[in-house]
Amino acid sequence: MRALRVGDVGLTLADLSAPEPNGEALVRVTLSGICNTDLEIARGYAGFRGTIGHEFVGVVEDAGGGPIARGERVVGEINAGCGSCPRCMLGDPRHCATRTVLGIVGRDGAHAELVRLPARNLVRVPAAVSDRAAVFVEPLAAACGVLERCAMADGTRVAVIGDGKLGLLCAMALVAAGLRPVLVGKHAEKLAIAHARGIATATVEGAAARGRAFDVVVEASGGASGFQLALELLRPQGTLVLKSTFHGATPVDAARVVVEEITVIGSRCGRFAPALDLLARGVVDVASLVSDTLPLARGVAAMERAAAPGVLKVLLARE
Amino acid sequence: MRALRVGDVGLTLADLSAPEPNGEALVRVTLSGICNTDLEIARGYAGFRGTIGHEFVGVVEDAGGGPIARGERVVGEINAGCGSCPRCMLGDPRHCATRTVLGIVGRDGAHAELVRLPARNLVRVPAAVSDRAAVFVEPLAAACGVLERCAMADGTRVAVIGDGKLGLLCAMALVAAGLRPVLVGKHAEKLAIAHARGIATATVEGAAARGRAFDVVVEASGGASGFQLALELLRPQGTLVLKSTFHGATPVDAARVVVEEITVIGSRCGRFAPALDLLARGVVDVASLVSDTLPLARGVAAMERAAAPGVLKVLLARE
Repeated sequence: MRALRVGDVGLTLADLSAPEPNGEALVRVTLSGICNTDLEIARGYAGFRGTIGHEFVGVVEDAGGGPIARGERVVGEINAGCGSCPRCMLGDPRHCATRTVLGIVGRDGAHAELVRLPARNLVRVPAAVSDRAAVFVEPLAAACGVLERCAMADGTRVAVIGDGKLGLLCAMALVAAGLRPVLVGKHAEKLAIAHARGIATATVEGAAARGRAFDVVVEASGGASGFQLALELLRPQGTLVLKSTFHGATPVDAARVVVEEITVIGSRCGRFAPALDLLARGVVDVASLVSDTLPLARGVAAMERAAAPGVLKVLLARE
Repeated sequence: MRALRVGDVGLTLADLSAPEPNGEALVRVTLSGICNTDLEIARGYAGFRGTIGHEFVGVVEDAGGGPIARGERVVGEINAGCGSCPRCMLGDPRHCATRTVLGIVGRDGAHAELVRLPARNLVRVPAAVSDRAAVFVEPLAAACGVLERCAMADGTRVAVIGDGKLGLLCAMALVAAGLRPVLVGKHAEKLAIAHARGIATATVEGAAARGRAFDVVVEASGGASGFQLALELLRPQGTLVLKSTFHGATPVDAARVVVEEITVIGSRCGRFAPALDLLARGVVDVASLVSDTLPLARGVAAMERAAAPGVLKVLLARE
């Protein structure tokens, strides 16, 4: 089968034999989405070698002993825990110390024809959610995860830094929770997507000109500069939620964090159920986030396309 | 009067005219303590120009219209708020946007013969607290402030990074709150001070060898390297409390904060009342933290002494 892989020679479209189930489930991928983390991995982030891709929807090929039958449509939680440590026993493998993570840590990912995951990681997709919406479950769950880590009361003044796909999804998730975020970005055409949904937007300069007007800032810009900007926007004792994962160190004015008594909260993955619910109820419209759909055979070109300025989500379709 | 000042030519002992009260209180300083922040200001931190020093005990010379009479023994809260903004109206000037801060922001400090502060900033010193203990109220309050920002249940596994005076005070404040911290440091003679008080200690290597064994790490090392070490010690979803203020940027592995879902909490000043209470009850013994006491006239040499390896608190006495 074909698979998009990162290796010593960089990014390649390889032809591999199909994976054996080995006690896990196999899913025939219908659509997969390119995440900024895929681009960062291709630049060296996480030191991963193998098939990339962790956003997908597909059809069960081998149930792997689980309750979801062959032929059912599924998405998959990306953290595969050991199943027996205290974290896993509490039903949350996201911080299992020996976890693998789909297409990121020790486990081949979803930019392939078939993907293998523990049966317990699979989640049925309701009929009301199309494939092109379901492929957004993982990043939308990550966006909803902001509220798992930082509860916000009605009226919380919240900004989201970054008008890329993660920033847009975070803003949409906050709106769905009854908040009124301001999306801060540099790209007029991306801010327009938010504006068309009734989300307030601001340029970086415009946001900074408001003074320290925000109780919470969600940093989803995917770059190191967002951290300092967030410190400029936050009121004293405000909260900065970090979402971006990228390669390299961020220079942080730690004294500012101390003097202003800022709280910085790291937030990675979220639970799938709330995200699927938002998609099923049509509360979050992800269709306009798709810039392009290319066949898996053109995976390398699709990665280049995803890295180009102004491009949002690029999907990889199976023929 | 003599005053220890930072200016364009660096650190000098100057001879100034005594300050006018201008509606505020005047305190004749008995003892003042040299803080790492004083050393950082002399290196450029906070861009301050003027008399440094913010840890002191003294005797009221002019009550400034307040309830504490001339002749009473006092310490002083270092943040002087505008008195009329919402923050100040709530009784907490520590984050007033237009505040001055004694010897740090826009207000001459306490390494002088007389110091001026709003009358509302003064706090009476109980008879049970000696001058040599009272001069520690400000840094001990800052140490107690860790618990204002990060409540810890009994049994919380907490480490303090930094065996300098701030780290030792933080460890003592945590012990006074019923916790059992591990003090992590590089200096055998400083760790011995903690050990003599029954506080568990560890070398940097020893702490790292425990794996990610801590729920909370308090970073009080005064340097940039403590942040990364804290990330090595914390369990996933643990909390890092930042206490150190120093000049320059700290390179932070922001992706690690995201992936491990760490919470970073900045903590600056604390309330004086809990600290005075600990000193009055003799729960915290600060005497052994004093490395040296020099006259104000030798202030420049005292600053050099305070910066020397192995030295803890250096006090400046008035003749």
